Amino acid sequence: MPSSEAPSAALAVWLASSRDRRMSQLAEFVAFPSVSMDSQHVQDCHAAAGWLAQRMCSLGIDNVEVSPTGGLPIVYGDWLHAPGAPTVLVYGHYDVQPVEPHAEWDTDPFTVVVQGDRISGRGTADDKGQILIHLDAVEALLATTGTLPVNLRFVFEGEEESDAEHFDDWVVAHRDQLRSDVAFVSDTGLFEGNIPAITVGLRGLLGFQIDVYGSPVQLHSGSHGGVARNPALALATILNSFLDDNGKIAIAGFYDEVAELSPSAREQLEALPFDDASYLAALGVDQSVGETGRSLLERRGARPTLDVHGIWGGFRGEGLMTVIPASAHAKVSCRLVPNQEPGRIAELVRKHVSAHLPSGVRVEVSSLGQGAPLEVPTDSWVVSEAAAAVGSAFGREPVYVWEGGSIPACEALGRLLEVPVVIMGFTPPNCNTHAPNEWMSLSCYEFGLETVVRFLTQVGVAAQ
Amino acid sequence: MPSSEAPSAALAVWLASSRDRRMSQLAEFVAFPSVSMDSQHVQDCHAAAGWLAQRMCSLGIDNVEVSPTGGLPIVYGDWLHAPGAPTVLVYGHYDVQPVEPHAEWDTDPFTVVVQGDRISGRGTADDKGQILIHLDAVEALLATTGTLPVNLRFVFEGEEESDAEHFDDWVVAHRDQLRSDVAFVSDTGLFEGNIPAITVGLRGLLGFQIDVYGSPVQLHSGSHGGVARNPALALATILNSFLDDNGKIAIAGFYDEVAELSPSAREQLEALPFDDASYLAALGVDQSVGETGRSLLERRGARPTLDVHGIWGGFRGEGLMTVIPASAHAKVSCRLVPNQEPGRIAELVRKHVSAHLPSGVRVEVSSLGQGAPLEVPTDSWVVSEAAAAVGSAFGREPVYVWEGGSIPACEALGRLLEVPVVIMGFTPPNCNTHAPNEWMSLSCYEFGLETVVRFLTQVGVAAQ
Repeated sequence: MPSSEAPSAALAVWLASSRDRRMSQLAEFVAFPSVSMDSQHVQDCHAAAGWLAQRMCSLGIDNVEVSPTGGLPIVYGDWLHAPGAPTVLVYGHYDVQPVEPHAEWDTDPFTVVVQGDRISGRGTADDKGQILIHLDAVEALLATTGTLPVNLRFVFEGEEESDAEHFDDWVVAHRDQLRSDVAFVSDTGLFEGNIPAITVGLRGLLGFQIDVYGSPVQLHSGSHGGVARNPALALATILNSFLDDNGKIAIAGFYDEVAELSPSAREQLEALPFDDASYLAALGVDQSVGETGRSLLERRGARPTLDVHGIWGGFRGEGLMTVIPASAHAKVSCRLVPNQEPGRIAELVRKHVSAHLPSGVRVEVSSLGQGAPLEVPTDSWVVSEAAAAVGSAFGREPVYVWEGGSIPACEALGRLLEVPVVIMGFTPPNCNTHAPNEWMSLSCYEFGLETVVRFLTQVGVAAQ
Repeated sequence: MPSSEAPSAALAVWLASSRDRRMSQLAEFVAFPSVSMDSQHVQDCHAAAGWLAQRMCSLGIDNVEVSPTGGLPIVYGDWLHAPGAPTVLVYGHYDVQPVEPHAEWDTDPFTVVVQGDRISGRGTADDKGQILIHLDAVEALLATTGTLPVNLRFVFEGEEESDAEHFDDWVVAHRDQLRSDVAFVSDTGLFEGNIPAITVGLRGLLGFQIDVYGSPVQLHSGSHGGVARNPALALATILNSFLDDNGKIAIAGFYDEVAELSPSAREQLEALPFDDASYLAALGVDQSVGETGRSLLERRGARPTLDVHGIWGGFRGEGLMTVIPASAHAKVSCRLVPNQEPGRIAELVRKHVSAHLPSGVRVEVSSLGQGAPLEVPTDSWVVSEAAAAVGSAFGREPVYVWEGGSIPACEALGRLLEVPVVIMGFTPPNCNTHAPNEWMSLSCYEFGLETVVRFLTQVGVAAQ
């Protein structure tokens, strides 16, 4: 059996000699525009799943299957040749965010460009690159030790960036097949200053679209202005009603179930090495906003929020077309924290919108998906092993962070499979996930690969 | 000399025998997509101007010129062979509104389709059809009487639907050449119920764009939500601040110069045969909004208003892309009434936007053009002649209306040439100007043609 020190020397050689080949594989994977929320890219998502399955087969992973879900497939595979050792379920997602606004990309989003340490392309960070870190770790271990220290199951989803609509049902249907001791998810990143981080809190998500309709046709604002309600102004009234003057969400009952951080969690959070000013400078904004009386770190990770992701309606060409738009639209979401229940919050949102709708127009509120928030106990054995792996790869313990984003699968895996979840990812901070010019760094990729190798080794050793 | 009764019999024959040919000419004119506010259509605007000049030449109009302005040209021509008779300046515009949203057109916007009485196409009503009514009237008079009862000058603008930026300067530069006794503008329509109408009030216009900018890049709303100000929400706050709960514009000082209608004007306005309910039913809305304590007719024609014409920013594709948009935008305009001065109101708007801008974002307010409001005295001699012409063509006196729209040229011609202006147009009510499926009715077209013939004849007779 490999010891916790064994892979280091051979691994370094393997990492260096395989780097170009591994980057080529990443480029192949990124080249599929697997944008799950865009129905025009259904074929591309299937193609990406097929490529991934083929890659897994070529590594010697067994039972590889592109498993149907009713939506986009889940790619499954396992390696179960370590009798007595624990089984680690690795989760990732092969779908990616849209690339809008396309014009703001400096390079083609689906062509990997490596410049120095920077690997640019949609999915290099979120999450194709991190899937390949895990597969490369398997290859590295097999190449340098001839075997794997643990049993592995791989579950790679294709709807994480849309509504994850079929994931829970698929997990339930495959519960026996998925039996594991721990779920390991790399869909997050390093903390500011490239400090390794284990995520102990994930916000939930509730997405919805608001459509306001006035007259069925665009009206001339000269002939009918002052008489017909303007749907764009009505939408503005609704959107403006969501936040109060103290940066809190003004939806009645919204905070009723919000759990405050425990004193120890708050202490941990506030002890993180974080400089507000340099964070804001990196974002390019001159001041932070949000709930008064809460630290920036708490606001962005451990408090619920509401954001508008897009607005549209009426005329947006050159010049001035003086119409009253027939309709106006917004995509909105709330990030939720324990113990907010997305279905209940959705009801509160609907009530709020109805109550704030100006007269003379009608409104529709439709769902754009939801996911529950998650809190990971820091005292689980896998979190300790993960921390130790990071410690040996990096020379310092990781920090524990509250990630403001949402990965519904983390909560679902923990709940449905009754396993501890370790959420540890390797993207650099400010890597433009969901934005133009998404990037991964080569050094973070290699650090991640080494950490995964050490974590799996550690977990195997710990169980002996 | 022709008498006021002379054209009628011959005119009826001429109208019937020339109708198909005249509709073909309208189709040719409409086929140029002369969208002046879209720089992609500059060539089309020039082509429409060229077609118009050629049409005028072929009628025997003299001194036809496609006259440069620094922007899109003005088409000029005159017929001055009625010594001693008054000179009538006819104004129209050969440019049209954009066709967005294109998908909502039932037929191609630049292909005239005649179905029964309905002539569909962009510009059939506003204002190409009404230009051709005037040119057809010249042809009709020449064909049926061998001469014209008055001298005529034609001024056809190409920037009425954009910012009319060069019109005033061109008029000033050509002031001597343009000397006339009256300006006649057909860029309005019949009153509800197809009642002929002379416009005695036109609202002014102040257009502006609001651009709100946050972080230079789209941010992930999970990682940065609750901390970075959302530009779309900030825009909603600004837009929502423009109107108060009583439907009045909440910009400080906005009403300071607003002139109330005179008691007689108000009496005239309220006496118009108008049914609020059927008007709203035609718009497809269930109730009217706006300033409390003012009638619907006053609100839509004689009071200032503010409308949003378009909003955009962030993600609008399928599904949910959870970004904080880098920017959010709105096109807005105010309709102004006597004695509001557009430049002063523009200053008040800028101050208001700055005062209502949330922290953490920056805003730019840029001009999208402006025009002054106009009030036409109902006791001028040309208004009487126009009323008489309508009376003889239609069998009843016209109504006097306050048109909520803006035709900056009307105000400019009256002011710069010191002539009375008669504003009398012939489009059917609800003809979808500025909207998809713009249309003119054949019977309104023919009624307009007959009224113009009678008006010119009447003016010639009156001066004898």
